Amino acid sequence: MALNLVKQNKAFGGWVKQFSHTSKVLGDLEMKFSVFLPAQSENSKVPVVYYLSGLTCTDENFTTKAGAQRRAAELGFALVAPDTSPRGANIEGEDESYDFGSGAGFYVDATTDKWKKNYNMYSYVTDELPSLIASELPVDDSRKAVSGHSMGGHGSLITALKNPGMFKCATAFAPIANPMNCQWGQKAFTGYLGEDKSAWAKYDASELVKSYEGPQLPIFADQGLADNFYPDQLLSENFIEAAKTNDKVDVEFRFQEGYDHSYYTMATFIDDHLDFIAKHI
Amino acid sequence: MALNLVKQNKAFGGWVKQFSHTSKVLGDLEMKFSVFLPAQSENSKVPVVYYLSGLTCTDENFTTKAGAQRRAAELGFALVAPDTSPRGANIEGEDESYDFGSGAGFYVDATTDKWKKNYNMYSYVTDELPSLIASELPVDDSRKAVSGHSMGGHGSLITALKNPGMFKCATAFAPIANPMNCQWGQKAFTGYLGEDKSAWAKYDASELVKSYEGPQLPIFADQGLADNFYPDQLLSENFIEAAKTNDKVDVEFRFQEGYDHSYYTMATFIDDHLDFIAKHI
Repeated sequence: MALNLVKQNKAFGGWVKQFSHTSKVLGDLEMKFSVFLPAQSENSKVPVVYYLSGLTCTDENFTTKAGAQRRAAELGFALVAPDTSPRGANIEGEDESYDFGSGAGFYVDATTDKWKKNYNMYSYVTDELPSLIASELPVDDSRKAVSGHSMGGHGSLITALKNPGMFKCATAFAPIANPMNCQWGQKAFTGYLGEDKSAWAKYDASELVKSYEGPQLPIFADQGLADNFYPDQLLSENFIEAAKTNDKVDVEFRFQEGYDHSYYTMATFIDDHLDFIAKHI
Repeated sequence: MALNLVKQNKAFGGWVKQFSHTSKVLGDLEMKFSVFLPAQSENSKVPVVYYLSGLTCTDENFTTKAGAQRRAAELGFALVAPDTSPRGANIEGEDESYDFGSGAGFYVDATTDKWKKNYNMYSYVTDELPSLIASELPVDDSRKAVSGHSMGGHGSLITALKNPGMFKCATAFAPIANPMNCQWGQKAFTGYLGEDKSAWAKYDASELVKSYEGPQLPIFADQGLADNFYPDQLLSENFIEAAKTNDKVDVEFRFQEGYDHSYYTMATFIDDHLDFIAKHI
């Protein structure tokens, strides 16, 4: 098996498991990811929800803090939580910032010389990891959805928009919805993609949503109004406005009074997101 | 106000808040605790569940990982999670072991010279903290229950058994149910209470349960059968057998196939514990 079991815990009748494996697209580095496999997966292949985490997170933040397994167990969904960047590439400066390098892969394929060997999280989460999971775990690869938080909310939106038909729907919590126009995104895109803004646009949800073609794409998002990063880094309204120009996407974007950027917001609304996914997957 | 708000996050319509305060019974040290206050507490005083954590934990393990707030919000319960020991007493050797000193207060009042000034977690969780919370937060102090995990499961059982009528019921996850007869308990009791085993018996649930008198006390517990510490450190059966001799306590003690000592076990069954509390509180 291409996967090594790192640890496992029984939870909600199923299992939380952490695996490691060697990733080719990330330059042969060892990567870890966590999954929840519901009891239903013992008898048949189950739908699978990919969850992409935010800056500084690992595969374990969502797994330990979001409380998603309870509803996933009821709905019979597998949950997959990848890490947020390559680990141990030993690139100079890789560990210096919370918002670039380690823990901040931004779900792009890097093209700059310094980063392009390892920082290819876009290919990792849309190709290598789903292929591995489809071949090694009891999931139905034809029934996938994607979700994520902050940088991972950006990841959720762009992976769905760039791959028509791959995901039945996408959801997001506090997504970085227009990275070309915020500091986090500009720093990451300059570092990974260089100065050419036409390259940035290919990873920007507010640009991609204008030209999406393919199966009707349902998108669901929650944004807290007490979030320190709203609106400057998240620019939710730019995405909402851009999406209105394209009738191939159906966007339900909610604003939540009093809620912040923390996992408590996610824990509060994760059931709504899983129920949304259940309608479309 | 005697409480300082450290941080707060909106969650499930209510608030998770962390407070600090100066504790007299712990030798004037600063302590932190976390609470969940449900939306119902904005209009009236609500029942309150004290949750005591296990070895190495702080007030934040339960708060971030147990997923308890969702059901507590539905039931209208406040949740209080104290820390597991004094912090910063600067006693020689305090930070050397995971199972003694910092993070391992064992919910006793120390009598040995070295520890008695600060390590009085029994008085802290049964007297000073509930009094403070009753005076400063919107809780109904006449409707209290107690729960806990591992060392905190021991804490839950002994605080209920030693204080007839204080708690309407007690629940526990993987409690250290007979500490006099396991390594963890023997180390802690020797250190905090000295060599006299009659002093130990006053903090041992399997001893206390034999002589409990007072209002009928409902007790509910879950023990995973894949728990590394079962049975040697937990000795669940000793408590179950001892409780059979006293018709003033009603014990429902469940064993769960495949579940371990982790917070995933707690997250899986916390709703059952809160529902049990709802019946009795």
